[in-house]
Amino acid sequence: MVDVFAKCRLPETYAIVRELGVYPYYRAVDERPGGGEVVIGGRTLVQAGSSDYLGLSGDERVVEAAVAAARRLGTGSGGSRLSNGSLALHEELEGRLAAFLRRPAVMVTSAGYLANLALAGLMGPRDAVIGDALVHACLIDATRLAGARLRRYRHNDPAHLERLLEAADPRAGRLIVTEGMFSTSGALCDLPGIAKLARAHGARVVMDSAHDVGLLGAGGRGAAEHHGLEQAVDVQTLTFSKAFGTIGGAVAGPRDVIAYLRHYARPMVFTAALSPPCAAAALAALEVITAEPERRARVRAAAARVSGELAALGFGVLAGDRPVVAVPVGDDLLCFRLWRELFEAGVFTTAMIPPGVPPGEALIRVSVTAAHTGAQLDRIVEAFAVAGRRLGLL
Amino acid sequence: MVDVFAKCRLPETYAIVRELGVYPYYRAVDERPGGGEVVIGGRTLVQAGSSDYLGLSGDERVVEAAVAAARRLGTGSGGSRLSNGSLALHEELEGRLAAFLRRPAVMVTSAGYLANLALAGLMGPRDAVIGDALVHACLIDATRLAGARLRRYRHNDPAHLERLLEAADPRAGRLIVTEGMFSTSGALCDLPGIAKLARAHGARVVMDSAHDVGLLGAGGRGAAEHHGLEQAVDVQTLTFSKAFGTIGGAVAGPRDVIAYLRHYARPMVFTAALSPPCAAAALAALEVITAEPERRARVRAAAARVSGELAALGFGVLAGDRPVVAVPVGDDLLCFRLWRELFEAGVFTTAMIPPGVPPGEALIRVSVTAAHTGAQLDRIVEAFAVAGRRLGLL
Repeated sequence: MVDVFAKCRLPETYAIVRELGVYPYYRAVDERPGGGEVVIGGRTLVQAGSSDYLGLSGDERVVEAAVAAARRLGTGSGGSRLSNGSLALHEELEGRLAAFLRRPAVMVTSAGYLANLALAGLMGPRDAVIGDALVHACLIDATRLAGARLRRYRHNDPAHLERLLEAADPRAGRLIVTEGMFSTSGALCDLPGIAKLARAHGARVVMDSAHDVGLLGAGGRGAAEHHGLEQAVDVQTLTFSKAFGTIGGAVAGPRDVIAYLRHYARPMVFTAALSPPCAAAALAALEVITAEPERRARVRAAAARVSGELAALGFGVLAGDRPVVAVPVGDDLLCFRLWRELFEAGVFTTAMIPPGVPPGEALIRVSVTAAHTGAQLDRIVEAFAVAGRRLGLL
Repeated sequence: MVDVFAKCRLPETYAIVRELGVYPYYRAVDERPGGGEVVIGGRTLVQAGSSDYLGLSGDERVVEAAVAAARRLGTGSGGSRLSNGSLALHEELEGRLAAFLRRPAVMVTSAGYLANLALAGLMGPRDAVIGDALVHACLIDATRLAGARLRRYRHNDPAHLERLLEAADPRAGRLIVTEGMFSTSGALCDLPGIAKLARAHGARVVMDSAHDVGLLGAGGRGAAEHHGLEQAVDVQTLTFSKAFGTIGGAVAGPRDVIAYLRHYARPMVFTAALSPPCAAAALAALEVITAEPERRARVRAAAARVSGELAALGFGVLAGDRPVVAVPVGDDLLCFRLWRELFEAGVFTTAMIPPGVPPGEALIRVSVTAAHTGAQLDRIVEAFAVAGRRLGLL
C-alpha cells in the first residue's frame, strides 16, 4: 500500500542549502521598530523585502483604527459575511473603496489571495482564460478551482495574446488576466495592447492591482489609472497586504458581477469575514492613500534611486520608479548565496526561485518603501556592491 | 461572441425572496455589545448564528493582546511567511498550538479556509481522497486545487467508506477526510469506524476540527480527544474564527508533512502572513481555552438546554450538547420565512440552503455560545415556538 504522505519529502537540495547556511525562507522577525528596519536574532537589518510600500502597517492612524475596532467590535465577527459575520464596518470599507476606485461595486475578502481565488466564480469550464505568463499563483489557482483551462501568453506580449484569442473557441467566453505591476519583476503590464485586443475579441479584462494600487496613478488607483485606461479594465482586484499595510483583499467591478460573486464565489461564501481590526486598518489606510499622494512620490523616488544605482553598479536591473526592483541572478544556489551575503551585511531581501519565477531566472527581489531613510537606501546599494563583487557578479 | 460575464445573473428566486422581505444573507451588524447580542438597524437581537462559541472575540484579554500586538508589530507583517512576513509571534503561536494539540508540528495560515485548502499539497492527482458527504466546502476545494478526485461516502457511514476504500486503485495513496464535529448538523464523526478502516487499508486520516477544538474533549483538543482516538488522526486542521474568536487557521501533524506543506502548499506560500493582532488574539485565546475548561462546559450545557427544549416543542432537532443545533425545515423558501420570523422576534440565526446542505434539506442553524445568558437562551426557544406555530411547523 502506498502512503499518501510518502510525497512529503523536501528535495535534497534543501538539506544542502541549510548546511551551507544560505536557506533564506521563514526567517522570523522579532520586532518591527518601524522606519524600514526589522530586528532578527538581536540584529537590526534594513527590511528590503517588505510589501508594506507606504509604510502604513506601523502608521499611528492605521494602528489606532485597528485598536479602536478591536475594542468596539472584537477580534473576529463570528462568521462568514454571507451568514452572520457581516459588519457595517465591512460595508463602509466596500463603499469607500468603490468611491476611491470609481467602480460600481466592491466585495471585500479576508485575504488578497482569496480575492483572486474568488474569480473562480467567473470562470466556467468552457471559458477561455488567457493570462500573462507571470501572473501571480492565486490567479492560476482560481482557474484550477474553477476547473477552467488557463492559456498563458508570453510576458507582456500582445502578439502572442492575439494568437491565443484567435485560437479560442468562438463559443467560449474570453477573460484576459494580468497584473497591473508584476510582483516579481516590477514591470507594468502592457494595458494599451491588452485593451485593444480585448475590444476586438469581445474579451473581459481582469487586472490584479495588488502591487500598484496606492502607488501608481495620480490618484493612487493603480496601473490602469497610470495608463489612462481604467475603463478598459472590467474587474480590478486588490490586496490590503501591500500598500494598505494589513491583510485582506477586494474585488471591484460591475454591480451584477460583484452581486454574483457574493453568492457564488466559494472563497467568499465559505470563509470567515475579515477581522474588525484589519478592516478598520484598511479603511484608515485608504484615507491616508487618498490624502497623502506625496507618499507615492517618495516611494517612487526611492525606487528610482536604488534601481538606478544598482544598474550603474552593473547589475542587470531595469532602472525605473517601481517599488519592486528585481536583481536577476539566474542560478538558484548563487541566488541563495547572494541573499545570505546581503543578510550578513544587514539587508533583508527576498530570494525568488522557481516556481515563483521561471526556471533559470532566480532573482533577488528588493522592495523599497516610504519608510526607508536615505541612509537605509544607501545601505541596500552598498550591500549589493560588496556582495556582488565578492560573488563575482560584477 | 459570448460575454464571460453573462453567467453573472442571480436566479430569479433571489428577486422574489428579496421582495418577500425574507432574504437572510449579508445582514450587517452595526455593533457587537457582547453578551451574546448584536445591534442591527438600531435593534438589539440575540446573536444565535455566531461561531464565536467561547465568546472570546470580545474577551478583554484577547482584545488587549490584539491591541498590544498592533502597537508593537503593526497591522500587517509586510509579506508571506516564506519570504519576509514571518514573525517570532507566528512561531510562538505554532509552538504553543503544537504543545496544546500534542502534535509534532503546526503551521499557521491566514484563514481557516486556507488551512484546509493547503491540504491540496498532500493530494496527488492519483491519490484516492475519500471524504464524508458533509465535509466543508474548503476541503472539497482542496481536492479541486490539487486536481485530485474526491470520492464521497454517505455521511458517517463506515460501510460505505469501506466500499470506497476497497474500490480504490491499490497503487493509490489513500486519504480519508472528515470533520470532527460537522458544521451543518452538529453531529460528531464516527472516528472509531474511520480509525479501524484507515488501519486496515493503509489510509491516512485528516480531521477538520474547526467546530470542535476548544469545545470537545476534557482538554479542549476536539473530537479526536473526545473519542480517545487522537493517534488515529494524522493531520488535524483548525480555524481561529470559531472558538478562538478571531481569524486564521492551522494545520497540525507530523514534522515532515508540515515542513513539506510550508514549502509546497500554494495557499501557504502565496499568501500574506496572518496579521499581528489576529495572531496575538489566537495566542491569548489559546491560553483561555487551556485555563478555563468551564467555558466548554457552559456552552455544552446551553446547547443541551436549547436542543432539548426545541426537540420537546416538536422540531426535528437532535437533542445533545453540541453548540451547533440544526433545525430541519426542508423547503428553501419556508426556511427563509422561518429565518425572517425569528429575526423579527429578535433572534439572528443562519438559514442554510443548498449547496451548503443537500437539496431539500434546508435548515436553520442555531449556535449557542458561552456568552449567552439564560434569558437569551429562553428568547431563542420562545422565538422558535411562536414562529414554528405561525408557519405550521409544529
